[in-house]
Order: sequence, then structure tokens, then C-alpha cells
Amino acid sequence: MMNNFQFQTAGQIVAELHSVHKLADYMEKFARVRRVLILSQPAMQRAGYLDNITTSLQAKDISCDVITSIAPEPTDAQLTAVFEDIRKEKYDVIIAIGGGSVLDAAKIIAVMFTNELSIRQMLGTNLVTKPGLPLILIPTTSGTGSEVTPNAIVTLPDEQLKVAVVSPYLYPDLVILDAQLTVGLPAAITAATGMDAFTHALESFISNKANVMSNTYAKESMRLISNSIAEVYHNGSNIKAREQMLIGSMYGGMALSCSGTAAVHALAYPLGGMFHITHGVANAMLLPHVTEFNRDAIEPQLMEVAKIIGLSSNVANTNQAATAVIDQIVQWTKELHVPQNLADYGVQQQHIDQLASAAAKVTRLLNNNPKEVTLEDMKHIYRKILK
Amino acid sequence: MMNNFQFQTAGQIVAELHSVHKLADYMEKFARVRRVLILSQPAMQRAGYLDNITTSLQAKDISCDVITSIAPEPTDAQLTAVFEDIRKEKYDVIIAIGGGSVLDAAKIIAVMFTNELSIRQMLGTNLVTKPGLPLILIPTTSGTGSEVTPNAIVTLPDEQLKVAVVSPYLYPDLVILDAQLTVGLPAAITAATGMDAFTHALESFISNKANVMSNTYAKESMRLISNSIAEVYHNGSNIKAREQMLIGSMYGGMALSCSGTAAVHALAYPLGGMFHITHGVANAMLLPHVTEFNRDAIEPQLMEVAKIIGLSSNVANTNQAATAVIDQIVQWTKELHVPQNLADYGVQQQHIDQLASAAAKVTRLLNNNPKEVTLEDMKHIYRKILK
Ligand SMILES: NC(=O)c1ccc[n+]([C@@H]2O[C@H](COP(=O)([O-])OP(=O)(O)OC[C@H]3O[C@@H](n4cnc5c(N)ncnc54)[C@H](O)[C@@H]3O)[C@@H](O)[C@H]2O)c1
Ligand SMILES: NC(=O)c1ccc[n+]([C@@H]2O[C@H](COP(=O)([O-])OP(=O)(O)OC[C@H]3O[C@@H](n4cnc5c(N)ncnc54)[C@H](O)[C@@H]3O)[C@@H](O)[C@H]2O)c1
Ligand SMILES: [Fe+2]
Ligand SMILES: [Fe+2]
Repeated sequence: MMNNFQFQTAGQIVAELHSVHKLADYMEKFARVRRVLILSQPAMQRAGYLDNITTSLQAKDISCDVITSIAPEPTDAQLTAVFEDIRKEKYDVIIAIGGGSVLDAAKIIAVMFTNELSIRQMLGTNLVTKPGLPLILIPTTSGTGSEVTPNAIVTLPDEQLKVAVVSPYLYPDLVILDAQLTVGLPAAITAATGMDAFTHALESFISNKANVMSNTYAKESMRLISNSIAEVYHNGSNIKAREQMLIGSMYGGMALSCSGTAAVHALAYPLGGMFHITHGVANAMLLPHVTEFNRDAIEPQLMEVAKIIGLSSNVANTNQAATAVIDQIVQWTKELHVPQNLADYGVQQQHIDQLASAAAKVTRLLNNNPKEVTLEDMKHIYRKILK
Repeated sequence: MMNNFQFQTAGQIVAELHSVHKLADYMEKFARVRRVLILSQPAMQRAGYLDNITTSLQAKDISCDVITSIAPEPTDAQLTAVFEDIRKEKYDVIIAIGGGSVLDAAKIIAVMFTNELSIRQMLGTNLVTKPGLPLILIPTTSGTGSEVTPNAIVTLPDEQLKVAVVSPYLYPDLVILDAQLTVGLPAAITAATGMDAFTHALESFISNKANVMSNTYAKESMRLISNSIAEVYHNGSNIKAREQMLIGSMYGGMALSCSGTAAVHALAYPLGGMFHITHGVANAMLLPHVTEFNRDAIEPQLMEVAKIIGLSSNVANTNQAATAVIDQIVQWTKELHVPQNLADYGVQQQHIDQLASAAAKVTRLLNNNPKEVTLEDMKHIYRKILK
């Protein structure tokens, strides 16, 4: 754990129940807003949030174009098609209301409007050259923390991978955290996205890049999520627990922006790219096994995790603490019914080599892992979840 | 403690030993920098830091004007005079390297260049109307956390008070935390500024505005400062401890920006305004007595503080915890030789009424206090430190 770090975040963060209804007021933050683009998803349309927002914006003479057709975990081709349809339009602000897929799409589209670059040209770190359009991100899952990260993830079907655009220009100007928006999130998505958020915190905490700042966020994230993840799964309308999850997932995003995720995320991307396993499910499947693999390098950190997530009364030494943390993760995946078998998604033994080769390309994240992960190690880990 | 909050911070924060020597590289963040204004203090000049910085900037064809004459805890007249001398100049960036007094001065001068307002017109909340010049803040005390707050404090001799400009336009674009700069800080200033930082964290934690975000910073701030404050006092060249203090004081600034300080700061301002008692000393004198006064309203929070600062083994209940925290604060002021008697500064019994009336004007902070503080209460507290 280092005292060195670099930290950056969203321009402003507002956390308040029902604050989404004040969106029109927040437009005063930006110069002369006449026309906005709203990216969202059908669930928000159905719940009436989008009508509500457009009405309040129109009352301030702001016209709204609404797009709800962003596919979950979209491909570069899908995003490019969305952008081609609107590239001639002039927007003053882009507003995204959705899960990580919608937020990431908005982050990319905002910089496409100002950079003469294709998505492929932006994939990688620091390849975006100019700030994008002003951007407001409003998460509706407690998962990715994308609202406070410099990353946007795109699925590349031909490479059978998921790849990131990473740029400080992807930080939004304003984040609105309104837990009410997450109340209708179905239990299965609540579970998968919640495990993604926990994975962000845990991986940032054991990452080679962990530091005094990222650890602050990672610890608070683990504390909040461990307190509320089972509750929101069983009782989705517990608004206090939904708030804790939403703030915990934001902290997870802050932690990963300042440190970095590691082998769990690296191994998850090919599962998304090749077999369309949703991001949170892929992480939840891998997390106990990658943690077991890393175990001997991270026992002191797992001791701290055990304390943070309330397991310390059961453990007498770092070895027991590591076991208790891994058991707790397994226990959550069971209690939250997160799928645990790659076979359910059509993965077969013959695919393992290909998955491992694809994961090995994610050096950006593998470099953060506290232990070197060889191709053989990766195959071994994938085989553990192929039953 | 609420789940609601609003959070904003510096555009980018870099924490790294010796990073001040990379300042010239960081100028690439800003568009076409040809000329900068550097505000600093004689200690930085003497230690050679300023020559180093101007040489490296000049090597990039950036010309530098350097001002080292900002007085500690400057008055509005002093700052206005500094500004009048340079108001016709054109700077691309303002760089401040110094204690809170220099950082606050730079924050105010940066917005004076772009707002047609006098300092008096800006005093208060949200009265600055336009962003200032691009601003880089480099703290050399581990104290105010000013590098991440929207506040700048000015001494008003005629009102015998210290008053704040509060505006989101005071957040800097870049913060550089280089603990090496704090190594030469004399022990007495180390002690006073360190107690100021601890006060920010503790007051934010027990403030009426405390929330899940400010508490995250407040707790980490108290943890880091309690671990290192005695060490940096006795052994100023312990660089790890200096780093912890610098990061802890930044967290204190984040905590107070997101929550708010309370009665300690309100009662401290007249001591600065009327008797030139330095800000950290005034806070350190008041902190145990105000905490004792608030005690019955904040015992659960003090129990948490006891755990965070490592006192929990001695305490069996919230009442004992409160006592242990207050004792620890008193113990620090003794060990760090922070003055404890107002009489040493010329305060007499006859001044108490005037001090209390002045403090009563600081409603911005008194409103955050967990207990109402009457004029009589304030007199009572001042009398405790007048021996
Ligand atoms: N940018 C980052 O830092 C970052 C970090 C991690 C993951 N990601 C990426 O984010 C994507 C995943 O995002 P996600 O996990 O939030 O899921 P998602 O955005 O793909 O949403 C999952 C499903 O839930 C629905 N949904 C979302 N919110 C809802 C609500 N409130 N009520 C009802 N339905 C709702 C969506 O319409 C979708 O069908 C992946 O592409 C992943 O790689 C990005
Ligand atoms: N903006 C905010 O949020 C905020 C918060 C708290 C306090 N303040 C204000 O900040 C001011 C106090 O700032 P401070 O406590 O940092 O003290 P300071 O800036 O007044 O400095 C105190 C003394 O230490 C010297 N000094 C500073 N750094 C040094 C170093 N590295 N080596 C040697 N000498 C050094 C200074 O030259 C000065 O003589 C007060 O006006 C206070 O009200 C502002
Ligand atoms: Fe993730
Ligand atoms: Fe202070």
C-alpha cells in the first residue's frame, strides 16, 4: 500500500432521494442549455421517469431528444450506429439514466461529438484528445460505479473481448445518485451488479496499485455493500439499503479509478465477449476462485477485509481470515442465486484455451494482480467454474 | 448521519514525494501556458524550491512572476494591495505554494482577476459569479486542507473577525501533495496546523451536516492524523509520518467541504481576528472544551472516534469513550506544547463579552453544531481557557 496516488472524479456529485426530479434545476450549472440528448433504457421509460424529466426540462424551454435503444453491454458497431443517427445534431448537454451500459455509451458518445475519432481509435488509454460535451450521469444499477470512472467498456465481437476506452475526458460534470431509481431493479440484476461493485472494491484493495486514497474508498465500499447486498436482494424496496448499495458502488468506482481492478476483471471480459455472460455474473463466478489463487500473496489484506465485512469475530489469524472472506463470497453467490457454472452458458472444455488466450491480452488489468497469472493458471481457474 | 450529500473537489490530485519538481510537466494539462504567477512564502524561497520551480518552468518558455509577501492570515486590505499591484498583468495559471494563508490568498486572487468584485463583495456564500484563473495549489502545512475546500478565509481587523469567501469557483484545477515540502515546518507550526486538521475531521464528523461521504473522509483523516501527529512533532523528518499528515489534512478538507465545521471554528475566528492567535492554536485550545460542551449530544460519535484513534481498548461504554477522546486531545496539546491560556495573548476577562458576541455572528458554522450554543455558553467556554 503506497502513499502515492493520483485522484480525479466527477465534477460534482449529488446524492439525495428523488433528486432526479430536480434535474431541470441542475441545468443552471451549465451555460445556456437549449437542447439535451437523453440516453436511457426502456425500464426508465416504463417507470415514467423519462416523461417526468422531459416535462420538467421542457418547462425550462429545453428540448429533449430521447434514445432508449442502447443494448446491454453494447458492441462498438451498435454504439457507432446510434451515434451516426445523431451526429449532425447540436446538443448542449448529454444526460444518461441507466445501468453501466447506458452510462458507458453516453461517455463514449459525448467524446465522439467533439473528437474526430472512431470508437476503435479511442480504445486504450489516453487516446481521446479533447473534452466531450457536458455530461450528466445518473446510475440505475448499484454496480459499475461508471459514473465516477474514466472508463467506458465496449464489446468487440470479432475479438471476443470487452475493451475499455480510458480517458480523463470521460469523467462527467455531474452525477446524480437517486436510490429510488434502483428500487425496481429485478433481484437477479441487483445480485449480479452488486457483486460487480463488491469486486471493484476488493480488487482495488488487493491491487498492486492500491494506495491510501483508493483504500479509503475500497474499505467504505466493502463496508456498505456487505451490510446491504443480501437485504436489497430479498427486499428490493428497502430504500436505506438501496442507498447504501448505490453509494457503495460509487465508492467502488472511485477505488478502481485510483487503483485498478485485476485478474477477476481480466478473466471476466472474455466471458462477456465470447459467451455474453453479463459482467456482474462473470465477476461473481470468478471472484472466489481468483481470490483463492491470490490468497498467499494477500492474506494481510484479507484479514482487513474480514474485519470490514464483519467476519473478524470468527477468525484468529490471517489464514482463517482469508478462508472466511472467500467463504462469505461463495455464500453470497449462493444466497443471491448468482449462476456458478459456465456450462449453463454453453462453455465447453474445448473453449478454455481460447478464453485463457483472450484473458491474457488484458495486460492493463493483469499487471495490477498481486500474483503473476500464467496461461495455465487462467485455464485452471476457468475449469473450476465449468462443471 | 445522512445518506444525502453533495460533493465536489479539486480537478486533479497528485500525491507523490518530490512531485513538486514535476510541476513544469503538469502545465501541459492547461492550454498554452506562457506566463504564471507564483504565490509563496519566504520559507519556500530559502529552501530553494522556488528557484527550482521557476528554472524548470522557464526551460519550457514559461515566464514566472513570484510574490512571497503574503502575510500569515492576511487581511482583506493586504490581499487587495497585493492584487492592485498585478491586476493589469496577464497570467495563464496561478500557482500557490505555501500554508493555508498563501493558498487562500491565491484562491481569492484567482477569482479577483475574472470577477469585477472587491473582497468585501465576495465574502459570504456563492457571491463569486465567474470561474477564476486556472489554479494549482501546493500545501506546505498539514493543516487547513484548503487545497480541497471551496473556502478562503480573510481577516477583517475592523470587525475583529475572520470571514470566509465560499464558492465552488475556489476549487483548484490541480493539487500537488509533496510531503517533502512539509519537512522543514517548525515543530510549533507542525503542532498547531496538525491540530487544525484534526479539528476539521472531528468537527465534520459530529456536525449536523455529517453524512456518509464526509464521514468516510473524516474517519480516515482522524486515523491518519492520530497515528502521526506526535511523531511529526518530535521527529519532523520522518517522511512517512509527514505523508500521513499531509493526506490526513487533505481528507480533513474534503470532510469539511462535504459536511462543515462547527462551534470550535466559530469560536476560534474572533481569537484570530481580535488577538492574532494563529488559527491552529485557537482551535487546539477550544477543541477539548467545546467537545466537552457537546458531549451529551455526541457520545455515540465519540465512541466511533475512540475506536478510530485507537482508544477502544480502554473503554467499556460511550461515556468512557467520550472521556477518553477528550483526554487524548488534551494530552496532544500538552505533548505538542500548544499554548493553552488566552492570557498569554493579552486576552482579559473584560474581552470575553466581545469575543462571544463576535463568535455569535458565525452562524454559518454555529448552525452545524450538534447543540445550540448560547452567548452564555460561549462566554463559559472562553473563560475555561483564560487562566
Ligand atoms: N465504466 C466502468 O468503469 C465500468 C465498470 C464496470 C463495468 N462496466 C460495464 O458496464 C456494463 C454493465 O453495466 P450494469 O452492470 O450496470 O448493467 P446494464 O447497464 O447492462 O443493465 C443490465 C440490465 O438491467 C436493466 N436495468 C438497469 N437499471 C434498471 C432499473 N433501475 N430497473 C430495471 N431495469 C434496469 C438494463 O436495462 C439491462 O437490461 C458492462 O458493459 C460492464 O463491462 C463499466
Ligand atoms: N480555506 C480553508 O478551507 C481553510 C481551513 C482552515 C483554515 N484556513 C485558514 O488558513 C490560514 C492558516 O493556514 P496555516 O495554518 O496553513 O498557516 P499559515 O499559512 O498561516 O502558515 C503559518 C506559518 O508557517 C510558515 N510555513 C508554512 N509552511 C512552511 C514550511 N513548509 N516550512 C517552513 N515554514 C512554513 C508560514 O510562512 C507562516 O509563517 C488561516 O487564515 C486559516 O483561517 C483556511
Ligand atoms: Fe466491473
Ligand atoms: Fe481550520
